Amino acid sequence: MNILYNIPESVLEKIKKIKVIVADCDGVLTDGGVFINQSGGDEFVRFNILDGMAVTLARDNNIEIIVLSRRKSLASEARFKNLQIKYAYTGVLDKLAKLNEILNELKVNYDEVAYIGDDLYDLKIMNQVGFKVCPPNAAAFVKKNVDYITSLSGGNGAFRELVEIILGTKDEYQQYLDKYL
Amino acid sequence: MNILYNIPESVLEKIKKIKVIVADCDGVLTDGGVFINQSGGDEFVRFNILDGMAVTLARDNNIEIIVLSRRKSLASEARFKNLQIKYAYTGVLDKLAKLNEILNELKVNYDEVAYIGDDLYDLKIMNQVGFKVCPPNAAAFVKKNVDYITSLSGGNGAFRELVEIILGTKDEYQQYLDKYL
Amino acid sequence: MNILYNIPESVLEKIKKIKVIVADCDGVLTDGGVFINQSGGDEFVRFNILDGMAVTLARDNNIEIIVLSRRKSLASEARFKNLQIKYAYTGVLDKLAKLNEILNELKVNYDEVAYIGDDLYDLKIMNQVGFKVCPPNAAAFVKKNVDYITSLSGGNGAFRELVEIILGTKDEYQQYLDKYL
Amino acid sequence: MNILYNIPESVLEKIKKIKVIVADCDGVLTDGGVFINQSGGDEFVRFNILDGMAVTLARDNNIEIIVLSRRKSLASEARFKNLQIKYAYTGVLDKLAKLNEILNELKVNYDEVAYIGDDLYDLKIMNQVGFKVCPPNAAAFVKKNVDYITSLSGGNGAFRELVEIILGTKDEYQQYLDKYL
Repeated sequence: MNILYNIPESVLEKIKKIKVIVADCDGVLTDGGVFINQSGGDEFVRFNILDGMAVTLARDNNIEIIVLSRRKSLASEARFKNLQIKYAYTGVLDKLAKLNEILNELKVNYDEVAYIGDDLYDLKIMNQVGFKVCPPNAAAFVKKNVDYITSLSGGNGAFRELVEIILGTKDEYQQYLDKYL
Repeated sequence: MNILYNIPESVLEKIKKIKVIVADCDGVLTDGGVFINQSGGDEFVRFNILDGMAVTLARDNNIEIIVLSRRKSLASEARFKNLQIKYAYTGVLDKLAKLNEILNELKVNYDEVAYIGDDLYDLKIMNQVGFKVCPPNAAAFVKKNVDYITSLSGGNGAFRELVEIILGTKDEYQQYLDKYL
Repeated sequence: MNILYNIPESVLEKIKKIKVIVADCDGVLTDGGVFINQSGGDEFVRFNILDGMAVTLARDNNIEIIVLSRRKSLASEARFKNLQIKYAYTGVLDKLAKLNEILNELKVNYDEVAYIGDDLYDLKIMNQVGFKVCPPNAAAFVKKNVDYITSLSGGNGAFRELVEIILGTKDEYQQYLDKYL
Repeated sequence: MNILYNIPESVLEKIKKIKVIVADCDGVLTDGGVFINQSGGDEFVRFNILDGMAVTLARDNNIEIIVLSRRKSLASEARFKNLQIKYAYTGVLDKLAKLNEILNELKVNYDEVAYIGDDLYDLKIMNQVGFKVCPPNAAAFVKKNVDYITSLSGGNGAFRELVEIILGTKDEYQQYLDKYL
């Protein structure tokens, strides 16, 4: 059972074990857009407020958030710093090695990890984790290789949806939400 | 009856009492997007022209507009100043306390207030007001706790829709609109 | 008959007379978004390439383009200058008076004018022209007072659609298009 | 057969011959939006990460990528340089002449070329190539003159879709994709 979303029975067991959520950045926390100006020297990336709140929700409920992005981006790093995400890295060419390192530090197993990504470079890491997810705007081959496709797209709440899918399967989350009422 | 929108009978009585409309900013007056550049020191937020006109419509028809945003944003404050919204604040951690203060000044009761918000921090204030509304892009738990979900999304006219839902239930609004013809 | 779009018979007669197309800017040539930065002193507006080409198509086929925007915007003016639109003005509070002046110069009657706008301030001018149009993102009351609602939204080709609806009812437009093949 | 997309039988034969993919820029690699600021002297264009990966996929699988844009744009050129696209040009008024030159150098025939574009200026070149494609946001007359309309729109993966439609008809692409697992 999930108090917020209708989740297929088949993935509920996987979800219940999750202690860590790992997110790709471009196309997941953003809509995949990169804004370039005439000098080519600046770059804007669009994040979403709903996903920022998701970091707070996860932290309050003892779910660790990790962001691993292949593309180096100072704009993205500024956002992650602002959200106080401890484990957030851009320019990570070998995501699996980096995650391995972090999971060792956290003493967490792969089946306790959920991963949300949108492109081919996310697949290796996805095949190790307990729950693999992508937004509807993901590459075609990625969509064929996940446990779950979020209803909200990247940069428009896909990450928030994943976080609350995880939290919403825990009995205590209803009480947590009720505190906001 | 509403001259512009099909409103369920169940909420019409609530709407008729409204004298003040309170709006959250991110995800309501914007689509929730925050544009960050490489230095992380600048930030763009996207507002909508339709919502700017809504402020005029409300003012002309004696509905007070209040904006309360939890996130401090100079970009948002610049927009509100430009729209000459008297009661507009960003960086408000306790929205309910702030609203209390303003309503005392305005001599308005909570059942004469409509509130539109999109996330958990809006719920406490929503539970006090006469008419609680969210855009379709709101967080799942918020959508479960409102009287009405606008058809237009945040930053794309959700606020305008709410303002005209309120105004459109007043007999004199048809005459007001006809003046534009 | 229209070679590109399915146009209701009822408006075809109106369309055939059109010699001038007048467009509002925000919400028509843009999606209504205004991007504000932290200093509040800069502002980005998003235009669309399809609409730029529409200016060329109209010019090549002897349809005059006029842009009248109530809101003063240097960003918009820069775009219109780049597109070499002779009659393009922002900050026009009385659009009807301005249009009157231009139509006198052009020796064109109101029933030879099409107008596309999205908000209440466009209605007075709409009620004078031969063919009144709005994009689907227009204000509710505007949508009730037009001859035609474009299928494409503002900033995403609404203006291009209008231009080609006008041009596509002229027999010679097929020959013109075939030259691109 | 295509391992990722459902492609009509009628176009499969055309696709199998393709060795070079040529893309227009605005409206194809972007959503057609041009962001102008108050000074009119800067300009942002929005590209998509999925399309960047498509360049890598094509390169790895011996498909040459060419970008030809009529509109001069330093922002676009910066993006293409970043993606290391060898044959990328903006400000090309005669695309057909330019392509002719490049194809001579590459020793490739027109029936081995796929082209994706969205507006009238793309038609002449389209009528020479083996497989002509447009995104759903293309001009009406262009949509009537193509072999295939992508499901994803410009700037949101249309180019990626075309690249993987081409690659997905090659037997070896499944093995290539499996390497990412």
